[in-house]
Amino acid sequence: MNAFISQLSFISSITDIDQLQKYTSDSSGFTSALPAIVLRPASTEEVAACIKACVAHQKNYTIQGGLTGLAGGACPDEGDVVISLERMNQIEEIDTVGGTAIVQAGVVLEQLQQAVLEQGWYFPLDLGARGSCQIGGNIATNAGGNKVFRYGTTRELVLGLEVVLPDGTVLNMLNRVIKNNTGLDLKHLFIGTEGRYGVITRACVRLFPKPAAVYSALAALKSFADVTVLLKEARASMAELSSFEVMWDNYLKTAAQVANKAIPFDGQYPIYVLLEAEGAAEGLDTKLTTFLEQQLESGLLQDVIIPQSEEQAKGLWHIRDASGETLRIMKHFVAFDIGIPLKHMQEFIEKTEQALQAKYPHAMNLFFGHLGDGNLHLLTGKLTEEELLPVEDLVYQLTALYGGSITAEHGIGRIKKPFLHYSRSPEQIKLMQKIRELINSDNLLNKARVVE
Amino acid sequence: MNAFISQLSFISSITDIDQLQKYTSDSSGFTSALPAIVLRPASTEEVAACIKACVAHQKNYTIQGGLTGLAGGACPDEGDVVISLERMNQIEEIDTVGGTAIVQAGVVLEQLQQAVLEQGWYFPLDLGARGSCQIGGNIATNAGGNKVFRYGTTRELVLGLEVVLPDGTVLNMLNRVIKNNTGLDLKHLFIGTEGRYGVITRACVRLFPKPAAVYSALAALKSFADVTVLLKEARASMAELSSFEVMWDNYLKTAAQVANKAIPFDGQYPIYVLLEAEGAAEGLDTKLTTFLEQQLESGLLQDVIIPQSEEQAKGLWHIRDASGETLRIMKHFVAFDIGIPLKHMQEFIEKTEQALQAKYPHAMNLFFGHLGDGNLHLLTGKLTEEELLPVEDLVYQLTALYGGSITAEHGIGRIKKPFLHYSRSPEQIKLMQKIRELINSDNLLNKARVVE
Repeated sequence: MNAFISQLSFISSITDIDQLQKYTSDSSGFTSALPAIVLRPASTEEVAACIKACVAHQKNYTIQGGLTGLAGGACPDEGDVVISLERMNQIEEIDTVGGTAIVQAGVVLEQLQQAVLEQGWYFPLDLGARGSCQIGGNIATNAGGNKVFRYGTTRELVLGLEVVLPDGTVLNMLNRVIKNNTGLDLKHLFIGTEGRYGVITRACVRLFPKPAAVYSALAALKSFADVTVLLKEARASMAELSSFEVMWDNYLKTAAQVANKAIPFDGQYPIYVLLEAEGAAEGLDTKLTTFLEQQLESGLLQDVIIPQSEEQAKGLWHIRDASGETLRIMKHFVAFDIGIPLKHMQEFIEKTEQALQAKYPHAMNLFFGHLGDGNLHLLTGKLTEEELLPVEDLVYQLTALYGGSITAEHGIGRIKKPFLHYSRSPEQIKLMQKIRELINSDNLLNKARVVE
Repeated sequence: MNAFISQLSFISSITDIDQLQKYTSDSSGFTSALPAIVLRPASTEEVAACIKACVAHQKNYTIQGGLTGLAGGACPDEGDVVISLERMNQIEEIDTVGGTAIVQAGVVLEQLQQAVLEQGWYFPLDLGARGSCQIGGNIATNAGGNKVFRYGTTRELVLGLEVVLPDGTVLNMLNRVIKNNTGLDLKHLFIGTEGRYGVITRACVRLFPKPAAVYSALAALKSFADVTVLLKEARASMAELSSFEVMWDNYLKTAAQVANKAIPFDGQYPIYVLLEAEGAAEGLDTKLTTFLEQQLESGLLQDVIIPQSEEQAKGLWHIRDASGETLRIMKHFVAFDIGIPLKHMQEFIEKTEQALQAKYPHAMNLFFGHLGDGNLHLLTGKLTEEELLPVEDLVYQLTALYGGSITAEHGIGRIKKPFLHYSRSPEQIKLMQKIRELINSDNLLNKARVVE
């Protein structure tokens, strides 16, 4: 390790055990281990130098961003070299004509959101960890969030990337144009692959004109079938629709209680939808209100709350966003993040709840999700530690049965690696491995994540 | 060849020379050659059998769809085996709850558009060749069209694929959910890669609710800078904006003349924008009209035509779509399809026009394009045959200088293969080749396209 350190003496590094603690784990609760050293390169060239040194000394290395991941992907093994991108934190360019930005991988999401807003533009990726997650990590995990429905996942927001390959080659693919059909679009090798094929150092992202107005409403419905009808009607009626979040009754009640909020409706309904529309100021509130009134009159909606202030809207979102707080009273728990085709959703939920209640009658099962995208969250707890793995296996088996995805937005990382086969066929896994062998051939980079 | 044919006797095949003529070329004008045989498999298993036979007999094979490509990708070499997907023409499922469709690769685009419309849904991919292009070819070339601006390219419309690999393995990736973060998204190896890595046999595509209303308008402006301002304003004001097509004055005049239409405005302006908005019926016409009137009052627009009938709107689109007819009077010509960052567009056009006029003063240069996506079309002609290659080289050099893409939607195919290096770095080309060697290792499949 001494020869290794002296080779990289020009790069800001950390070896002090107290300081290293910060780099041992992400937000997933994955069992953490102390790295040997944290390298903090400040440029693409320094990242390449770090990688070349790891190869020369055959050291396993783990890439870290903001450490907010939920799949254990950023957790090092004991003695790993950690390469943290935190010092690559410059927004290099905001193009206010074309609506693009060039950012370094270590830029914190909220910093980018704010910087482009100041220029009259909007970066629509948004998630709870916005204050500490980094754009490089968002891209490596293809982060989702509440607005995927309108703007796409992170993948759709990335025009180009700069990546350092595991052999130290810098791949400059900082494309700035929306349409580029010059053969294999290599950036997709690095988006959502959690650093298994290379290290993202810079990105060119798409911006959108800043929306002048945002309005929300909470609707109560009598069945999931009615929710799918509402979704289609809302999409057809409002191109401005930006979120379509569904909460089943037990989630709403528990989350409201935990968040110290009153339950919004007087009556009780089986299922609720939190809608959001964003766009031009003129007429959007009327448009949303008119639409909801029509759906109420037709009988599709049982009740609806249209907030009369920003404060009241925030209160509704607080309930939706209280899943983190809710989990605190559910330990040990599993927080699922799955994708299920809408037409199978109701049946999947019924079957899953029955199976869980039969085997784990002491646990609560709370359902909610970004249903506009078929993304369902399920919180199951309290469980004993021994019950965690069998509960995961049970839910992922059912997910596979209904043609779903075992992770819609959080990624595979280390935690879901044993379950990958429920979403990907042996032929797919083999091809993923062959490409890993081709590009990350000595398997030093982010070993033991996603796929061998 | 006899042993080869007898092995595949169960598959509908063509060896008659007259009938083979139909399979010699696509719409690109690339020098054509007669294949030895055309195989027309009707199922994924038959496609796999065809591929295995080609491998066993070490025969080069070319995949064909609707033969409407503009880059020569579907043109066989002399004596090639052609595998045509034309008999895989079934729409297998339209999911009216989730808004997805499962289609075989040989389904004609217009057939899919119509079938989903009848179920109240909308497939927004649209291009001139809709009546004969096939969805497999659309995906393999990542087709663009007029509505990319709102709905994305074909890539964004594909949720999942089924592909047969060059070793005969069937890769079933018919994912139906929007969010699926289970590691490397393998479908991107096959989208826009023009059949170099596998043969697309089936796809799951995204549908949108059928828009109730579509409105267009033609605006006249005084500069390209004003066009970029209009684009941002229009995006911010109308989430319904679905097309933003720009025509420079010389294109508008020439195309109107060729299409036998009157020039729409009394005055003459340097540049025009054809806008289209689609969405809910209620209020959309007023919204578009109000927006345009405001831009007229502010002085951004010099004049505007808001069609009073569908007929009149079609007339405006006819001029925009008359590029094919315009080319007929320009032979020999080069029809460019490039991507340029918006902030460099005006300078790129000026420099390119100057350079072309200096060297080829006898040729016309007509500019237009899907400017909402930074996609510029340029028609240059009449040229002599000898001038074609140097003209391409000149324009692609300038494209590279401004960080553009040498093909925004048509693809590389055979025709643009010599120019790939203008848009892709040596490191990128090397990685594309290494992946080609990994997956299409004996290089029998679609040889001599895109990349070695």
